[in-house]
Amino acid sequence: MAEIGKKSVGIVKTQSIRIIEAGQPLPLECGKTLGPIDVAYETYGRLNEDADNVILICHALSGNAHVAGYNSAEDEKPGWWECMVGPGKGIDTDKYFVICSNFLGGCSGTTGPCSINPKTKKSYGLDFPMITIADMVTVQKLLLDKLGVKKILSVIGGSMGGMQVLQWAVEYPDFVQSAIAIATTTRLGAQAIAFDTVGRNAILADPNFSDGNYTSEKGPDRGLGMARMIGHITYLSEQGMHEKFGRKLQGTNGYSYDLESEFTVETYLNYQGQAFVERFDANSYLYITKAMDYFDLEKDYGSLNKAFAAVKGRFLVISFASDWLFTPAQSQTIVNALVANDKDVSYCDIASPYGHDAFLLEPETLGAFMSGFLQFTHRPMAKRKPEQPVRRKRHISRFEQAHRTRVDYELIESLMEPNSKVLDIGCGDGELLANLIEDKNIDGKGMEVEQDMVLGCVNRGLPIIQHDIEHGLGNCADDSFDYVILSQTLQTVKDPKKVFNELLRVGKKVIVSFPNFAHWRCRMQLFFQGKAPLSKQLPFDWHNSPNIHFLSLKDFDRFCRQLGVKIEKRIPIVKRRLSPVKLSPNLFAEQVIYVTSKG
Amino acid sequence: MAEIGKKSVGIVKTQSIRIIEAGQPLPLECGKTLGPIDVAYETYGRLNEDADNVILICHALSGNAHVAGYNSAEDEKPGWWECMVGPGKGIDTDKYFVICSNFLGGCSGTTGPCSINPKTKKSYGLDFPMITIADMVTVQKLLLDKLGVKKILSVIGGSMGGMQVLQWAVEYPDFVQSAIAIATTTRLGAQAIAFDTVGRNAILADPNFSDGNYTSEKGPDRGLGMARMIGHITYLSEQGMHEKFGRKLQGTNGYSYDLESEFTVETYLNYQGQAFVERFDANSYLYITKAMDYFDLEKDYGSLNKAFAAVKGRFLVISFASDWLFTPAQSQTIVNALVANDKDVSYCDIASPYGHDAFLLEPETLGAFMSGFLQFTHRPMAKRKPEQPVRRKRHISRFEQAHRTRVDYELIESLMEPNSKVLDIGCGDGELLANLIEDKNIDGKGMEVEQDMVLGCVNRGLPIIQHDIEHGLGNCADDSFDYVILSQTLQTVKDPKKVFNELLRVGKKVIVSFPNFAHWRCRMQLFFQGKAPLSKQLPFDWHNSPNIHFLSLKDFDRFCRQLGVKIEKRIPIVKRRLSPVKLSPNLFAEQVIYVTSKG
Repeated sequence: MAEIGKKSVGIVKTQSIRIIEAGQPLPLECGKTLGPIDVAYETYGRLNEDADNVILICHALSGNAHVAGYNSAEDEKPGWWECMVGPGKGIDTDKYFVICSNFLGGCSGTTGPCSINPKTKKSYGLDFPMITIADMVTVQKLLLDKLGVKKILSVIGGSMGGMQVLQWAVEYPDFVQSAIAIATTTRLGAQAIAFDTVGRNAILADPNFSDGNYTSEKGPDRGLGMARMIGHITYLSEQGMHEKFGRKLQGTNGYSYDLESEFTVETYLNYQGQAFVERFDANSYLYITKAMDYFDLEKDYGSLNKAFAAVKGRFLVISFASDWLFTPAQSQTIVNALVANDKDVSYCDIASPYGHDAFLLEPETLGAFMSGFLQFTHRPMAKRKPEQPVRRKRHISRFEQAHRTRVDYELIESLMEPNSKVLDIGCGDGELLANLIEDKNIDGKGMEVEQDMVLGCVNRGLPIIQHDIEHGLGNCADDSFDYVILSQTLQTVKDPKKVFNELLRVGKKVIVSFPNFAHWRCRMQLFFQGKAPLSKQLPFDWHNSPNIHFLSLKDFDRFCRQLGVKIEKRIPIVKRRLSPVKLSPNLFAEQVIYVTSKG
Repeated sequence: MAEIGKKSVGIVKTQSIRIIEAGQPLPLECGKTLGPIDVAYETYGRLNEDADNVILICHALSGNAHVAGYNSAEDEKPGWWECMVGPGKGIDTDKYFVICSNFLGGCSGTTGPCSINPKTKKSYGLDFPMITIADMVTVQKLLLDKLGVKKILSVIGGSMGGMQVLQWAVEYPDFVQSAIAIATTTRLGAQAIAFDTVGRNAILADPNFSDGNYTSEKGPDRGLGMARMIGHITYLSEQGMHEKFGRKLQGTNGYSYDLESEFTVETYLNYQGQAFVERFDANSYLYITKAMDYFDLEKDYGSLNKAFAAVKGRFLVISFASDWLFTPAQSQTIVNALVANDKDVSYCDIASPYGHDAFLLEPETLGAFMSGFLQFTHRPMAKRKPEQPVRRKRHISRFEQAHRTRVDYELIESLMEPNSKVLDIGCGDGELLANLIEDKNIDGKGMEVEQDMVLGCVNRGLPIIQHDIEHGLGNCADDSFDYVILSQTLQTVKDPKKVFNELLRVGKKVIVSFPNFAHWRCRMQLFFQGKAPLSKQLPFDWHNSPNIHFLSLKDFDRFCRQLGVKIEKRIPIVKRRLSPVKLSPNLFAEQVIYVTSKG
């Protein structure tokens, strides 16, 4: 056995429990019934006294209940998410009581097509009823009931596990305190269904498939292996795959000019296919991929907005930039529907070259997001100012350093009614929002582009969406916030008019601040010296400035007139002074804060 | 038969010719020999008196010699590129004499695995020797020799046809006047090899495959169909596929809860697989995909730069933005190697949602590029000022209208030595370059971002690369141009320093022009009125300006000093006047032209 370090949960035993008796079979979504149902599960960590630290992990297509640790002292390999689940890890078993069960239809202990059909005393094979993601979740719920769990702190899963997470959230809103949906989707697109179809075809076409009545000695191994190979290609990114294998050959003597595998990528895929056959059942593969194809929250609820209307609790949605199977765009669809329903949702598209598989291969980044999110969900009182801030190393951009000043923050805070709903765009690591929540009890949400900053917000327990304001605010309803803040950013966006109109649509009031380009120092520099302004407020050389538009109070006044926007307040300020500039503000203000409304 | 319109070549007969006799077999790249070899081919149009209008089309994996028209009056369907080849079409059979042959190893008339092995009097099957793209091209060359063709105006092909095009160009540089390589690559990456492998596995695993000795009545249809299904998924883009099929169901009664095809995408793929089986041979599929996997110009020549070192003639490289099988990046690799070798190459990444299949589905756009390119290649004397300009509708952006002025052009022209090598970045539709070629006989190349403009340059016969200068000039060697021109663009790029350094690296002299932000009118406006400048030279409101940096002559002088750049000439100008501003240029010049060098 590999040496079990301190960071592993150690040796765990897969347990089995009968949750449905033969006499009282479970009605399934397809209209048929199934019983008895046994469930295989494992647990890690301990249930605390308040019984509020339960985490349910939902596994993906090829996973099982064995998430972490070793099943015996002879085990060569730990569970499938060993990197993520254990003492001090992303899902910290010192803090949380973690449960994972093999899903219905699986082949690792829970009732599935290879289980014995009580009617025939043989394996179900294709007599097994068709199951759905909802059926899987029903069985998981029955397991938790049986175990006496009354609520779960978080339900977590990637890929097909994420589908179960979403199903949990919409079906048991009162039971689920939070949900972490990773690299998943509310429904497969045509391409993913197509890949599944070809995989199933490969199994069905295998002469050893025998209508599903194969034996363990002689099964449709080639077909199942081929299905796995196709799957595997879709789990990796083109870039990742090319970096790993390129065009490397297995042998050293150049091309063999025959039909054998000779590129290492071929050998690798063949190996993956064969290894899979040893641990997986072909019938299960058929049923489970079909359950994936069927999953469609839009269809079930009429629309995704309706599907998420009744969900409660907090959401963390994670995608991976190079995932082309369950794409970032699909995750964003989930986020948009949650935002449209005004739910507490955070989202990050993690930069990773590993494609869909990144949910298994990015323990550090993904772990940081999960631990921050879980910690705040579990102990919200530790809140915005945790004793031990999770993030010490804070990257502050030159731009931010120069512009996101205290003065700016304090003035903005003074403009805001208590208990307001606030959206801070370009919120950085959430400092302003955190202050507003502490001091004014606002209901605050943030948007930010940089991954590091998004993580900072997650660690403060803020709902934070990774989003570029250049793409508008299509996910936010009209007038859905009392205040929308765009601090020192308007001059850096490509299309300020489009952005500003979006802010006005979404916010009842819009607070915008920017540096005043017509400050006397700028005027002097251009007028007398004939050069581009360089000042404390505009501290960048002409060629490396993030500011791509230059405007003055006068310019913005005219802009508002043109758009028919009402200027509620205009606060020209000088850096490091809270009191507004009264005399000739367009000449003396270094920066300015506007409060505007549709008028 | 479908009605044959005027735009079709009408009824054509596939012809067959023996190019290799059994007694003198052809040595192949794999070390074996093959003979006899028959080739099936078709021709369209007529050879002209000068015999300089021959176009060779190379077909892709599933194509054949039947490119256009109908083989008989009963034919239901025309050839595979009917949309592109015919009177007045992209490849105009009124002008050109078009030849296409089924490639070696194919199954549509040319010798391949299903041909009779003279030794056994049975089909070769797996006794057929392994073939390569180079072998295919050798056979095509022998065909052309047999037909008395002495040179070809252009060799054209998409996908695997493009591989043959590249092979032609590097192997027969004196024979090939130009090459059009569409949606292709110099070698497959790991992902594409992986898909090919799975496809071949499906055929090899089919029980009817019988080691390649199947009969036409009982062949590995399921395996071949599955290979085609996998291929088909890779030919479409995710977006295109989802738009076409989405999650639509075949029936109307909702899910069937069984293992039958029920999504329309499944039915479609099954149909594609079955249809393919009827017209294609499984052994051919194995051999041809293997030939694709083997193709690797880098490996053959040591590097791509070496591969293209000796090529001659003109190149047009086309990719499609949504093609994820043979990606735009792969096309750009080809372009970069050609640029590095200072070849006459044009490139465009055509915006299309159709993925790899776009080379069959974008006749209008692709046709416009090809006809323009072919016309100029064929009749360069018609040159920059064609009697009938191909493009009438010319989109001139507001920005260009305002900035790319005659004055600017004429001054730049006056600065240039005759016969120089010139790179014009952001060259629009090539007006300046065309003038420079006419008046100063320069050797000019262009770079441009917009597809329409790129087409405009192709129509003027200019070598034009679609490329965003923000990404640098990694493909150009140091000092590879006498002059690099960046007219009225420096102030619009994100990182002027990076861009300017790249210009200086690539050009012996760099000519830059930009509007002067310190013109007296700008100074007055900011100083007295306190608003962002708005003038003829800076004609945009602060919020919708393409100018994202503002600089004066003074700023640029300092910038050059900082970079250690020598200012050879500084020509401050006022619009509509050719003579430079002499008095206080930083105050009175509306714009300025700098000639700089590394110093």
